Parts: sequence; structure tokens; C-alpha cells
Amino acid sequence: MKNERIQQLQQELQQRKIDALLITEPANRRYLSGYTAADHGIQESSGVLLIPKKGKLWLLTDSRFILQAEEETQGFTVELYKKGLIKLLKKLLPALNVRRLAFESHYFLHSTFRRLKKALNHSVDLLPVTDLVEEMRLVKSEAEIRLLKESVLCNEQVFQQMHGLLAPGMTEIEIALSIERLMREKGAERPSFDTIVAFGSNAAKPHAVPSTRGLQKGDLVLIDMGLVLQGYCSDMTRTFVFGEPDNVFLERLRLVRKAQLAATKAIRAGVICRDVDQAARKVITDAGYGDSFGHSLGHGVGLAVHEAPSLSTRNQKKLQAGMIVTIEPGIYLPEWGGIRLENMAVVREDGCELLNEDTTGLDL
Amino acid sequence: MKNERIQQLQQELQQRKIDALLITEPANRRYLSGYTAADHGIQESSGVLLIPKKGKLWLLTDSRFILQAEEETQGFTVELYKKGLIKLLKKLLPALNVRRLAFESHYFLHSTFRRLKKALNHSVDLLPVTDLVEEMRLVKSEAEIRLLKESVLCNEQVFQQMHGLLAPGMTEIEIALSIERLMREKGAERPSFDTIVAFGSNAAKPHAVPSTRGLQKGDLVLIDMGLVLQGYCSDMTRTFVFGEPDNVFLERLRLVRKAQLAATKAIRAGVICRDVDQAARKVITDAGYGDSFGHSLGHGVGLAVHEAPSLSTRNQKKLQAGMIVTIEPGIYLPEWGGIRLENMAVVREDGCELLNEDTTGLDL
Repeated sequence: MKNERIQQLQQELQQRKIDALLITEPANRRYLSGYTAADHGIQESSGVLLIPKKGKLWLLTDSRFILQAEEETQGFTVELYKKGLIKLLKKLLPALNVRRLAFESHYFLHSTFRRLKKALNHSVDLLPVTDLVEEMRLVKSEAEIRLLKESVLCNEQVFQQMHGLLAPGMTEIEIALSIERLMREKGAERPSFDTIVAFGSNAAKPHAVPSTRGLQKGDLVLIDMGLVLQGYCSDMTRTFVFGEPDNVFLERLRLVRKAQLAATKAIRAGVICRDVDQAARKVITDAGYGDSFGHSLGHGVGLAVHEAPSLSTRNQKKLQAGMIVTIEPGIYLPEWGGIRLENMAVVREDGCELLNEDTTGLDL
Repeated sequence: MKNERIQQLQQELQQRKIDALLITEPANRRYLSGYTAADHGIQESSGVLLIPKKGKLWLLTDSRFILQAEEETQGFTVELYKKGLIKLLKKLLPALNVRRLAFESHYFLHSTFRRLKKALNHSVDLLPVTDLVEEMRLVKSEAEIRLLKESVLCNEQVFQQMHGLLAPGMTEIEIALSIERLMREKGAERPSFDTIVAFGSNAAKPHAVPSTRGLQKGDLVLIDMGLVLQGYCSDMTRTFVFGEPDNVFLERLRLVRKAQLAATKAIRAGVICRDVDQAARKVITDAGYGDSFGHSLGHGVGLAVHEAPSLSTRNQKKLQAGMIVTIEPGIYLPEWGGIRLENMAVVREDGCELLNEDTTGLDL
């Protein structure tokens, strides 16, 4: 049984006069085949797909992953490369009559390209492509949206459980590790990125690395966390005070929340991405904090935690129904700290639908 | 103050008539600069070094990492790329008179190469190099060996503590997570690879992924774990029975241990790598288990957990004093399980020196 995604991809290959496409990017590999293995970095691939413009589909991997690949895929011939991928391709491509082979240039090492080119010795044209499968992944099906919702809700459960366990003296690292442990206990495959837990002035760094700083009453706490459930990622940020918030915090929190709500309201199919960023940015800039909001408003989420579309000041593309975006304005003030609030939403024809249900500390 | 590593590298660049080298590989970056940031995958670099054949050294990074880069490095000019690395290089390379720029082809995306080439528009020759810094890293200094020893001993402490906590019903995942938590509590930056905990037949897969299988009395337990301490990696495997081992287990354990000791004895400067593999493999093959030992005997360890030299059936290079290798023979029997024993050792002129002190379950 060949799935619709493969059929759509093969049509695209035929139109582009590509004989076969090599899929190396892990999320694309999973999207097309169902094979769940992750790579341990680009230099330790757990396998590649070879998708011809028609006919048999291939999954090429090494002995460590053969069993898993066979269990998880349907309609793929799993082939072992004992002496490496390149030697196998050298044998397989002529047998399949492949003269024009496309590869994912954005997930392909330059050294691999050189070795492959040399091995094939001009018998095959190598065609770099980027974003071919990524474009297919942009708009999510309702089934995918359900999986994303499950991932978001599972992530929220972990957050809420941890929120209830916070106590004076706990370190940022301890909290981050506890969160990641709870994620796995609830069935997550892994965190979708390194969990950020930052107290007080540490929160002034958008990508703070958890430290041994201990939690004190009155500390500002920023937690940015996400997990992978059944392949699909979640990503959420909450910022609150451990104890009683003061007026400065409340004022800044309300500003960031106002920016988030303005952006949320601006989202619907057909709207230009940068206009959504602008809706939030205007609120923050008008309040005099424009220079403290240094990053983009949001990004797409799916099988990858960072994917298109980017809600940035530069992206002039239009939102489409079924896209998933984060809405995460923030302000960062050295010495003082930072506030970021992040939700995920699905773009609909007439607006957007929040995937989050948690409201911890959003509306004070 | 310019360090000796940089001086050695610059001499090499001058000999090869290279004007400057771009360092993208994270362990090489750390080796040369002391900058400890890790990459979140090759598509999210935390910065690159630009090492000219002489003169000022550069660390190019984005706003998230500027502070850390400045704190951790000496003798580097830290430069921000606001609009991406390629735009910065386009400006910087002509200013530095760079006409021949080398790059690390084995850690450089093909798509980045294409964009860089286009941006530079033939004004700069791009020269792929591989393993230039890796070759410098092959032989460790005594200071590095001390750090590796500390990493190994810290890893052993975690193992021994966890070994004492094992109880019926604990799952493979729980044990793996507890190990990784203990690592961080003892000051490790992170595990050096995903911890493997496998009970019974799960241990038949050399790269088993921890599952929800619960520990029972009499289970075979394989634990393969390592951590990163002050940048340097450790890697150790122990296999034991939770409860009383039976004679089949003991016989196979003694075989693997015999192979490990044979290989350990074979190691010294000047010996060919594959001969060390062969010393262990012969013991296992002679006992009739040759087909059950599917992987190589060992690999180098340093700032990366897998680096040269490989102790494989194919590596014809000679060991040099100061290299670090793992010695990890194993046998894997579907249905039954697997046994792997792994130590780390430093190659010396007249033999080898074990970095491990733990002997749990090795000699029964």
C-alpha cells in the first residue's frame, strides 16, 4: 500500500524529471515512511529513503536499525548497507536506471556529496533540492493537528505538575531535569529541545541554559519546554513569579500578554506572516520596549520543533489554513530578567484555534 | 596569548597555502578556542571560528551566544552575525585578504556551501578539508589524559551508585533517566550519548533503546553509559545478572572478558589497529561465537565520544602513544540477550594503561 504523501511526492519528481530522491532529513524520513528512528547527529544517520519516481520504495540502513525499520514501515524494501551507503547506492542506482538523483542539500554533508559524486563517476547527475518535502509538511492534516494537540496537552500536564512541585532552593537544573523525566514518564519520546528554566536575571537571555541557581521567594521564573509525542512536537513558555509578583512584573507581563493576544487575533489564512509579527511588535514598541524584543514572534511546529512558517519581520509569505505556529512575544531586560509567553495555534480560514488550554499566569 | 594548538594549525595552513580556515565542527571549535557551546544539530550552529594563516583570530556567532563566547575564549575577536554567517563572511573575507578559504567538508552542509559560493562570487576559492584538526586531536596531552580519567571515574561513580539502587520492577527507561540525572548532579555537562539500559533479550541489540520493561530477579542487565566532564567524554559498558547468574551466562561472560583481556594485552604504540581487533575476535571466533560479534572492537574517545582511531577489522593504521581507545568486545544472541564489556585505555609506548578502576561483574 502506497500512501498519499508518497504519491504526491512521486508526481512532483516526475514533473521535475527527477528519477529518484534521496531523503536524509530525519523528520522528512519519518513523514514519508513512518520510520521513527532519530539520527545521532548528521554524521550518524539511522538510514535514508530512496524514493524513485515510480516503483518500489527503499529504506537503506545499517545492521543496528534493520529490525526497527522493518517493523515500522509498510511498502518499503529495507536494504542493509554493510559497507556504507555510498557503496550500496553505487550498486543500486544503475540497477534502478537512475540517471538523475535528487538529494536534500540542506541535510547532506559536503563531504558525502563529494564521495558520492566520485563513486558514481558521472554516471548519475546529482541534483540538490531544498524544502521539497518540507513544503508538503507545511499544511497539517486534521489527523496531524490532533497529534499536535495531544503533544501540547501532554506538555501542559507536565508543566502543571512541575509548577505544583516548585519549592525554595530547587535549582534551575533540577527543575529542568524533573520536567524531562516527567515527560518520558507520560510517554514522550524525548523533549523537543533542551528545556529552559531561568530565574530572575537569568531569564534576560532568550536561550538561557539552566544553572545551579536556587529558587527563592519572589523570583521571576521563566520555563520554556516542549516534548515529542508520537513524533509531533510541542513548545510552550510560561513566566510567573514564585511568590507575590510586584507591580513592575505585572505591568510588563500584561504588556507581553497584550502583544500575544493582538497577534493571536491577527492570525487567519491569507494574512502575511510579517503582519502577525508586526501586530505583536507594535504593542511592545508603542510601550517603549521595542529594543527588548529581539527575536521573531513565532515559528511553525510539526515533526520538527522549528519549521516553516516563520512569523518574522521579514517573511512575506501568506499563512495557509492548517499551518501551526507559535505565538511567543517576549521582552528581555539585562539585570532584571525577561518575560516570554508562548502558545501554539492552528491557522484556520477565519482565524486561529489555540492548541493550548493552560492559562497559568497569563492573565493577572 | 596564542595557544600552541593554534600555532601548530597556522603552520599547517601556511604549508598548504590556505589563507584561512573556517572551523564548524563543535569539538574542533572547543579544542582550538575553549568555547564550550554545543550545536543543536548542524542546522543550528552556535558559532564558527575563522582562523587566518596569521594574525587575529575570529569567533563568529549570533546574539544568543555573544556573552558566553567572550567569557570563554582568549585571544579571539568575537563578532556578531546579525544577518547570518554568509553575509558576515562576505564582508570579512575581503577585508582580511582571504583568497583561499578552507572549510570542514565533513561538518558543512552542501546547501551552505552553495550559498557561500554564490555569495562570494568567485572572489574566494573554497577548499574542502577533512580531519585537519581531528588529526591534531588524535594524540592526547597528559593534561587531556587527566581530564579523560576524571570523566571515566565520574562515570564509574554514577554507575556504582545506580548499581546499588537497582530494585525489582524498575524499568529500563527509569534506570537510564536516573543515570542521566546522577551524571548532571555530579557536574557532568551531559551524557556523552543516549544511555543504554537493556534487560534480558533486549540486550541482544547492540544499540538497544530503553523500554518500559521491568526488572526481574535473574535478568541479565546491560548498561552502556558515558558522560561529558569539562568537555571530555567517557564510555563504559557493564553486563551482569540481577540476582544469581546461571552457568550459561557465566561461560559467555568469561569468554567476552577473555577477549577483552587479550585485546588489552595487545595494545601498545606501533601495533596496527586491526590486529588489536583481531586479538579479541580470535578468542570469540575460536569459541564458536564469531558471528555473534558483529561490531568493531573499539574507537577513540576525547572531546567526541566517537573519534579516531577505530579498532576495526579494516583499520591498518598504527596506534600511537597518547591515543585513547575503548576495548569493547561483545556477543549478541537473539532471544537470549547480549554481553558487552567496555573499558577505556590510553596507549603507551610499552603497553596500555586502563582508565577504568571499576571491576563490577568483570571477573566471576
